[in-house]
Amino acid sequence: MNREQLIAQIKKKQSFLCVGLDTDINKIPKHLLELEDPIFEFNKQIIYATKEFCVAYKPNIAFYESMGVSGWESLQKTLDYIPENIFTIADAKRGDIGNTSSMYARAFFENMNFDSVTVAPYMGSDSVTPFLAFEDKWAIVLALTSNKGGLDFQKIKGGNGKLLFKQVLETSKQWGTDENMMYVVGATRAEELSEIRKIIPNHFLLVPGVGAQGGNVQDVAKYGMNADCGLLVNSSRGIIYAGNDTDFAEKAKIEAQKLQQEMAVILAKSGI
Amino acid sequence: MNREQLIAQIKKKQSFLCVGLDTDINKIPKHLLELEDPIFEFNKQIIYATKEFCVAYKPNIAFYESMGVSGWESLQKTLDYIPENIFTIADAKRGDIGNTSSMYARAFFENMNFDSVTVAPYMGSDSVTPFLAFEDKWAIVLALTSNKGGLDFQKIKGGNGKLLFKQVLETSKQWGTDENMMYVVGATRAEELSEIRKIIPNHFLLVPGVGAQGGNVQDVAKYGMNADCGLLVNSSRGIIYAGNDTDFAEKAKIEAQKLQQEMAVILAKSGI
Repeated sequence: MNREQLIAQIKKKQSFLCVGLDTDINKIPKHLLELEDPIFEFNKQIIYATKEFCVAYKPNIAFYESMGVSGWESLQKTLDYIPENIFTIADAKRGDIGNTSSMYARAFFENMNFDSVTVAPYMGSDSVTPFLAFEDKWAIVLALTSNKGGLDFQKIKGGNGKLLFKQVLETSKQWGTDENMMYVVGATRAEELSEIRKIIPNHFLLVPGVGAQGGNVQDVAKYGMNADCGLLVNSSRGIIYAGNDTDFAEKAKIEAQKLQQEMAVILAKSGI
Repeated sequence: MNREQLIAQIKKKQSFLCVGLDTDINKIPKHLLELEDPIFEFNKQIIYATKEFCVAYKPNIAFYESMGVSGWESLQKTLDYIPENIFTIADAKRGDIGNTSSMYARAFFENMNFDSVTVAPYMGSDSVTPFLAFEDKWAIVLALTSNKGGLDFQKIKGGNGKLLFKQVLETSKQWGTDENMMYVVGATRAEELSEIRKIIPNHFLLVPGVGAQGGNVQDVAKYGMNADCGLLVNSSRGIIYAGNDTDFAEKAKIEAQKLQQEMAVILAKSGI
């Protein structure tokens, strides 16, 4: 999916919601465990219930990888089930030397047909650029993450006075364009989004950590939105584990719709 | 495998060689392509031919992942075929927030029984510590990589005057011990190994990029070896693609043996 198509979906659905499919065999409703592929069955029902309200799905690859071969099969079936007009993100945090990153790109873009992959920047340019060589595919580079450990290195101040995550933004934005790169930006302090927007005004930002913790979509939009929206705000557990019984999909739908309605108000105000 | 067992293997085999299994369906000898699982067949013959000369095997996970489900099956069969007394490294460069890193750890340590996984440090402590919670298992953290892009961020000088990769070493060494952590250190400038040894005198270092490019094992040993050896020096393409015909395993054996003999001389000189 290209940028224009993604923006069109955001406008049409009045949503910039991404639903994170962190599907854990130990957390899904017990009645699904009798089925042949409980992980896929859970995802299928979640997708069916939420697809009107979101513009992206983000399977967290670790959750599938931890199940071995059957996990990869569940992931493939899930991907095949996602409607074509919804953006797909392999949240895989991959990145290696050039020839190896090319292999990861093939895994997610060719073998599985994801629209995008999240990528770690530590190994630099040749670890990211192989993901940019595929038409209408995207690398989503880690810039600022909202976990505790994100402070360990991302906010180290360089000799030039720049925090590492800002240097990552400045250096890496030269590797591609806002048509094939996005950035992961954790929403712990929304005001940081303003500073990030000074460096990358046009790129899409994938913002995790919203929803389960309560509504800071307003703040994210206030400081991070641009003229094309430029945001994908993710909620995983707050949606997919809203319920834990046979009505889990119905409860997920309610949570997704709540966030979409909040987003619709924001988009309308901004004339998007 | 624990540290003591690994050191015992190094002494017994007089080798600190790691063979990288970067097995590419487009590079293996053509006659294997007729077989049911050419990737596994290639690995099996390489392992059979080289196992006396090395103490570790390092499958590059991207190469298997790019093949989809069949790739993971080839990887599992390869791992099952590696003798128990040889250390196994999943070269996967994983790393995510805590609950997700736990899933990756389960994937490689429980589902597949690798001894170790390579891990990217950008997301900090909680992205690495879940890999340290398994007995006799190891996280091998990226510190300094030898690719061109390694210069982009790893050698940024911080406000405190420290290069980023040194800060990564200093901070991360507190997360575990030399019994459950190693570091990836590229061998582009061997003298950097001396500086690294000042920060982490006891940890094992996994050193890639030796062999195919020609013999700088001497330099790596000169600047990086400690009293327990403390080195795993990897060669991938230089060994596994030494030949490209029906005698590929024999040619791989010759290259592995050459490196082992060079290492034996070094170890003998150091009294290890």
